Amino acid sequence: MKLEQAFGQILREYRKKANLSQEKLAQESDLDRTYISLLERGLRQPSITTVFQLSTALKISSTEIISALEAMFNEDPENRISDPKR
Amino acid sequence: MKLEQAFGQILREYRKKANLSQEKLAQESDLDRTYISLLERGLRQPSITTVFQLSTALKISSTEIISALEAMFNEDPENRISDPKR
Repeated sequence: MKLEQAFGQILREYRKKANLSQEKLAQESDLDRTYISLLERGLRQPSITTVFQLSTALKISSTEIISALEAMFNEDPENRISDPKR
Repeated sequence: MKLEQAFGQILREYRKKANLSQEKLAQESDLDRTYISLLERGLRQPSITTVFQLSTALKISSTEIISALEAMFNEDPENRISDPKR
């Protein structure tokens, strides 16, 4: 799984937990609904500013999102960003 | 302070703590030294993949970087990404 796909899954989960539509999340985060949709489908990857905007709209911390992302991403050893040189 | 400026400061701090030159960090993270320099000066903002690559090279978690970023960024109320609608 690519990092942006993991991010998309997490974003969708948090959005549903917050009981927001893509439309509503777009309004709250000042992002485009189309862009939210692309993010959730793992077709774009967010900048840190986008992560901060989304987490504010979702009323969670950016740290929480990144922590969930890191956990999901590292779960699969194949997808771990490893450092083979060390 | 803009988010990318806060990120730049944090990246530089962690790089120095890890005792790496920009050159060496570039090699370890598979990024361009010029790009590392732009990031540290707050002239570019990283995608989440870049954050993951950098944190792996620095042997810290991405969560730790984002947590430090969030703390620094939210310290100054003027720069907080707030949600005036609520």
